[in-house]
Amino acid sequence: MTLWSSLIEFAKATKKIGEDDPRRIVHSMKVGLALTLVSLLYYFRPLYDGFGQAGMWAILTVVVVFEFTVGGTLSKSFNRSCATMVAGALGIGAEYLANLCGERGEPVIVAILVFVLATMATFTRFYPSVKRKCDYGVLIFILTFTLVAVSGFRAEILRLAHQRLSTIIIGGITCMIISIFVYPVWAGQDLHDLVATNIEKLALYLESFAGEGFHSSVENNDNSRLQGYKSVLNSKATEEALANFAWWEPGHGSFRFNHPWKQYLKIGAHVSECACHVKALDGYAASSKIKPASETCKNFQKPCTTMSSESARALKDLASAIKTLKSPSSDIQIHIQSSKSAANEFESILKNMSLPQPDGQELMQLLVVASILIDITKCVEQISDSIHELSMRADFEEQTPRDNESC
Amino acid sequence: MTLWSSLIEFAKATKKIGEDDPRRIVHSMKVGLALTLVSLLYYFRPLYDGFGQAGMWAILTVVVVFEFTVGGTLSKSFNRSCATMVAGALGIGAEYLANLCGERGEPVIVAILVFVLATMATFTRFYPSVKRKCDYGVLIFILTFTLVAVSGFRAEILRLAHQRLSTIIIGGITCMIISIFVYPVWAGQDLHDLVATNIEKLALYLESFAGEGFHSSVENNDNSRLQGYKSVLNSKATEEALANFAWWEPGHGSFRFNHPWKQYLKIGAHVSECACHVKALDGYAASSKIKPASETCKNFQKPCTTMSSESARALKDLASAIKTLKSPSSDIQIHIQSSKSAANEFESILKNMSLPQPDGQELMQLLVVASILIDITKCVEQISDSIHELSMRADFEEQTPRDNESC
Repeated sequence: MTLWSSLIEFAKATKKIGEDDPRRIVHSMKVGLALTLVSLLYYFRPLYDGFGQAGMWAILTVVVVFEFTVGGTLSKSFNRSCATMVAGALGIGAEYLANLCGERGEPVIVAILVFVLATMATFTRFYPSVKRKCDYGVLIFILTFTLVAVSGFRAEILRLAHQRLSTIIIGGITCMIISIFVYPVWAGQDLHDLVATNIEKLALYLESFAGEGFHSSVENNDNSRLQGYKSVLNSKATEEALANFAWWEPGHGSFRFNHPWKQYLKIGAHVSECACHVKALDGYAASSKIKPASETCKNFQKPCTTMSSESARALKDLASAIKTLKSPSSDIQIHIQSSKSAANEFESILKNMSLPQPDGQELMQLLVVASILIDITKCVEQISDSIHELSMRADFEEQTPRDNESC
Repeated sequence: MTLWSSLIEFAKATKKIGEDDPRRIVHSMKVGLALTLVSLLYYFRPLYDGFGQAGMWAILTVVVVFEFTVGGTLSKSFNRSCATMVAGALGIGAEYLANLCGERGEPVIVAILVFVLATMATFTRFYPSVKRKCDYGVLIFILTFTLVAVSGFRAEILRLAHQRLSTIIIGGITCMIISIFVYPVWAGQDLHDLVATNIEKLALYLESFAGEGFHSSVENNDNSRLQGYKSVLNSKATEEALANFAWWEPGHGSFRFNHPWKQYLKIGAHVSECACHVKALDGYAASSKIKPASETCKNFQKPCTTMSSESARALKDLASAIKTLKSPSSDIQIHIQSSKSAANEFESILKNMSLPQPDGQELMQLLVVASILIDITKCVEQISDSIHELSMRADFEEQTPRDNESC
């Protein structure tokens, strides 16, 4: 019975993973297809005679190189091919050098060279820039150099190196073709969508915060929808990986080859800072249950509601500008200005406040909420500036007047 | 000239990476040593005759399995060996099945089996639990199954599988022995130290915040030391990786095999939440330059200073309790209590506040700082509770009275 229920659990988990992103199923089948294709290197005798056991390198290449996104596959294929070539050449050189030292000296020289190069190459993996860009390439470099230098001791080295390189290239090209032409998953498109969706999630929270009169969203039914901002806090690593991969991708959809992908990281940094403030806001809303009763508190509440709702509107328009690849409309500036003048209004109420305060604690909570909202307003302006820069550098379409009206 | 200066830059970067953690240099040499040792499989004819080309699998294993920490190496070796065995057995089964279908049917059956298993195995890599624990194992499973099933078509399959498994085990054991016995780097020890250091960094900031009368630390000389809390914000991924690896490690130093490593993640979560609040505090301190002038503001400042300094003391004692593997002393509870009563004091001043406010904006900044400090106080209590739980589960030594006095 427990086996049966855990099987059902497993089936449910499987269904959820597939439904969350159906491209995962397609990706799995693409890997299966690529592997089956390179297995042909073994099946058919003519190819087998040409490549021999080296056919296994094609299989190995497919298994380790095929990534979920096109950019990931291209970057790994490129890393692998380059590292194999450089290391192969060095390995042949090492073997040649060792050969000069006679039969006795050869293994000693090879062993020393392997030790020195492996040590040095392993150390370079601690450089942050190497770690980020070509960690995998260095791994393959160490592997290939050692294999070629050491194998040379036994077999005809040039034939071996040539066979291995050609099968690796066959494996890499198979991956690239399937990855690009069969339901491609573009890292660039994913990055673009991720940034726009993150901005929308923040807008959604702020909108409901203004609408509910500062009550926490936790009580609501669509709780999980409003708590979306939490995922924004943890998307930095994903964004960086996608931007790295997107750099490798050819033009696709509305993006040309040299699309300013790094600018998305700048936008993402501002968005995640804004999400930090939203988290603080949600913390206060959940714990304090502000119910402005006194006159002063009511005075304070109005500019807070304005800041929240106007920031939400600006964020919504910014997200839709990204999604439609159009320059941010002038409406966004208007929303940001209203939000900023609400912040000023708040500060002037605060300056002129000299009444006796009936409930200090409630006032304090309101002031904290207001100060967070002022921070959010500043953040929204930074997000808007960075998106404007993106729209300039990526030649987004200008919004036509009609677009503006429909907003 | 530019080449020369960039060479100097490079040398400086190298020196810094080595000085930051000299274990990196040792690790690189350990990898070199392991590779040189397994190369002996090729060098000496008796071994070569026994293993043939399969010796390359030992090299491949060393290159991909040797990780910086003992736990990482053990986990990867184990993953690789298990996956190779299971996949090898399945591959032989698949080949046997295909053989039954005659010469024509064989490649078709093998191709279908490879496609189906590769697709299914690739899909499992999307399960979060598989991704966390045995992503690498699944990769090796796909590789080995395909290689064995497909190679069987050509060569004597059992000999091949046996050779490959033995060389992989030789490679794995070489890595494990060198990793454990030559200057070992224990993931568990690193995790333990990381958590203690992170707590110390927060204490350092709060201490200086109280001492400087709320001024930002940015103006100081030892700026970078105080800004240490920023690294705490990003240590979650490192902590999780270390805890995963530490699980694999045998008892070492003061830690037994079943040390409650997961508890460190709980502590780490509270510490990182506290760092979030410290970041907010630093943001205010940097932007506002609070100079409490009015009488009310001065009244407010005292409890704030107390909260900050008492929280700092509690955190310092907690960090030293972890470092010395002793139960948290009773002093810590006293510091937390003083901090909490300062928070209450603040709230009662706030409740009774009914004077005209001369400078609303300054008051607001003070209130925001106070509310952040109250949050920090709560966080410190959670950190203390989770460390107490750790000390119970890991049987930390009780503090003797003398220990208490010397605190």
